[in-house]
Amino acid sequence: MAEELEGNCLVAQSGGPTAVINSSLAGVINEALNHECVEEIYGGLNGILGILNEDLIDLAEESQQTIRALRYTPSSALGTCRFKLKREQDFQRVLQVFNAHNIRYFFYIGGNDSQGTADHISRLAQSQGYALRVIGIPKTIDNDLVATDHCPGYGSVMKYAATTVKEIAYDNESMGQGDLVSVLEVMGRNAGWIAAGTSLAKRREHPGDPPHLIYLPEVAFTPEKYLDDVQRVLGKERYCFVVVGEGLVDRDGNYVATSSGQIDSFGHAQLGGAGEYLRKLAEQHLGIKARAAKLGIGQRAAAHCSSQVDNDEAFLAGQAAVKAAIEAGETDKMVTIIRSDADQYGSETGLCDLSTVANGVKSVPESWINDDGVSLNFQFFKYALPLIEGEVGVPYENGVPNFARLYRIRVDRMLDAHKFE
Amino acid sequence: MAEELEGNCLVAQSGGPTAVINSSLAGVINEALNHECVEEIYGGLNGILGILNEDLIDLAEESQQTIRALRYTPSSALGTCRFKLKREQDFQRVLQVFNAHNIRYFFYIGGNDSQGTADHISRLAQSQGYALRVIGIPKTIDNDLVATDHCPGYGSVMKYAATTVKEIAYDNESMGQGDLVSVLEVMGRNAGWIAAGTSLAKRREHPGDPPHLIYLPEVAFTPEKYLDDVQRVLGKERYCFVVVGEGLVDRDGNYVATSSGQIDSFGHAQLGGAGEYLRKLAEQHLGIKARAAKLGIGQRAAAHCSSQVDNDEAFLAGQAAVKAAIEAGETDKMVTIIRSDADQYGSETGLCDLSTVANGVKSVPESWINDDGVSLNFQFFKYALPLIEGEVGVPYENGVPNFARLYRIRVDRMLDAHKFE
Repeated sequence: MAEELEGNCLVAQSGGPTAVINSSLAGVINEALNHECVEEIYGGLNGILGILNEDLIDLAEESQQTIRALRYTPSSALGTCRFKLKREQDFQRVLQVFNAHNIRYFFYIGGNDSQGTADHISRLAQSQGYALRVIGIPKTIDNDLVATDHCPGYGSVMKYAATTVKEIAYDNESMGQGDLVSVLEVMGRNAGWIAAGTSLAKRREHPGDPPHLIYLPEVAFTPEKYLDDVQRVLGKERYCFVVVGEGLVDRDGNYVATSSGQIDSFGHAQLGGAGEYLRKLAEQHLGIKARAAKLGIGQRAAAHCSSQVDNDEAFLAGQAAVKAAIEAGETDKMVTIIRSDADQYGSETGLCDLSTVANGVKSVPESWINDDGVSLNFQFFKYALPLIEGEVGVPYENGVPNFARLYRIRVDRMLDAHKFE
Repeated sequence: MAEELEGNCLVAQSGGPTAVINSSLAGVINEALNHECVEEIYGGLNGILGILNEDLIDLAEESQQTIRALRYTPSSALGTCRFKLKREQDFQRVLQVFNAHNIRYFFYIGGNDSQGTADHISRLAQSQGYALRVIGIPKTIDNDLVATDHCPGYGSVMKYAATTVKEIAYDNESMGQGDLVSVLEVMGRNAGWIAAGTSLAKRREHPGDPPHLIYLPEVAFTPEKYLDDVQRVLGKERYCFVVVGEGLVDRDGNYVATSSGQIDSFGHAQLGGAGEYLRKLAEQHLGIKARAAKLGIGQRAAAHCSSQVDNDEAFLAGQAAVKAAIEAGETDKMVTIIRSDADQYGSETGLCDLSTVANGVKSVPESWINDDGVSLNFQFFKYALPLIEGEVGVPYENGVPNFARLYRIRVDRMLDAHKFE
């Protein structure tokens, strides 16, 4: 056991939500309650934005029933943001808020940008001699964080997207006339993990099952090869099922389709339209009827079709973060998921430096992509399949899922309002 | 009991599939097996197209396990088509095929076009003195058939779409910065039943819950009112959730958005893009960040989130068709669903003339749409809510649903190939 640090704990969520990000939050709360050195368990609303604004809530006031229901509630129950801290006075403000509320443990559930923010806060505290333990909890449907075998959130989006592919494919297959190109656009800004994951809709030993063509950001796209690919599939099948990740790029690394060209506050292009682009290409150049669907935000919120393995790991990651900070005295680390070597899938949690994860992006390994550039080999299946196993039982009321909502008892503010400009 | 008619029975599926169309097929097979006057139970592949081609399969050869699994398998297990019989020699060919295979019972699961085809076949048989009993089984996610309280297929698409709306809305609500317009496009060519059904995502007594704005084909669309509507919602909420049916029309009755202008073989425009159109309107005219998603084919195939009430009614409709033909000696009728008068929801089946249903289209009643034109009143809720109750338990294997596939033992052809031109 490390030296005990008495004080309050703060947990916040950042970036795009997932189906299981609240399961990590529940894990943090559940574990923090076990430790006497933790006096209060606060939640920061809307990520780092809420911390700057001193928008804190008292999570210990929430009912046990609510905390339990968080485990199957999508979205970020604390609210989230895509605000990026840049100015030094903003970081100083974070520490002022922490100091005012005696925050000694800070848990930040987010992706690589968020882990970078946590790292900066941790280092600033150290440099100023403010006793603080900071542990990041990985979260992203994109599965693009380095240093962890996979990210909580990824298994659930794969399960939903693969289920949707299987259902649409059954529908496509039953249409009796003419050729059809069926395009499904999924998320994935920098890496094709979600698009790749839809290949789990294939039955084992049936590599020819839909989806027939998967276009990943990892493989430079050319319209010529795409049209050849489609024609090759339609030489064998009555329909061609195409999955495309939103972040598809050409040989020069430019996105093949953007809906508006807008750039978000992290400098990321707001993407959209890759599916519609592929639909039009097929219809215009091959004269084949083509349809496109775009799962959009629904895919990262689809708790009703989420993975039990993913949900359990998200919860454990939240618990592990608290244990690392309190029992082991760790700081400036992110929880990782480590896969066991056994034949049967199993995992445990580990830790890595926040700085390692902050700016890295993990792509789908080239060696897992077949030579055709549009399908995945057995190594990907071995990696991905265990992550979608098990179905989370979501309670329904009046025919739709019954999700939790935090009561949000506010913590009194101690400071003046923050000046953002 | 009517006079017994000995011979074979043929069942086929037509038009766009639904999540429960195979439950009706299972109902037909299940009931037909109870009647000794039925010698063989054949399935026609790809609707009327397969009948013209004599593509028949022996459904009695399928395993009990497969027939049971049909109850939660989306798509049309027999295959379907959108081919419209027009030439008199094609109708004659149908009767030749029926005669060659001693078909005396014909069950056609489909929408209004398909019921029109069944009606024509029935009358032709009567005029030629060929003993045949024809019963239609209603099927459409669009819920636009007249003479029936509602259509099997509708409850399930509502349940999936409303669930998706609720999940996306939770996600939207948790984003902490700025205004957001979130658009979801759902199906519905001539009527707004599916779009209206997403209002079931609202909690009772919370009319302000998302979806905030629902645009139905029943209400003429103007961009000016839409932009006003969005601004009104954003005056109260941090995000505006918009649902739009694909068949949205302007004051002149023209579709506001078509993806390609193509016309299908029934003379229907191939629609798409209404959601993207509303997204762009908000972004360009209001300068507000907007996102759009399009559920596409997935919504009519989403067995994983289908309604138990809907599934049960689809099965009962299949059984009722067989009972009507064999026990009551009915012909030239379609099975209808009749809602009971009791406070607690209940339904039974009835019959109507095929000709009644063939060319009618049932829209959402004007009296169920609020004066704002973008929300539904309690009468709609009372009508729709019971139809989405209950969750169908779909078995999963390797993390994705495990659906049935017919073995398809072919019936020997007796005739020469049909000439289509």
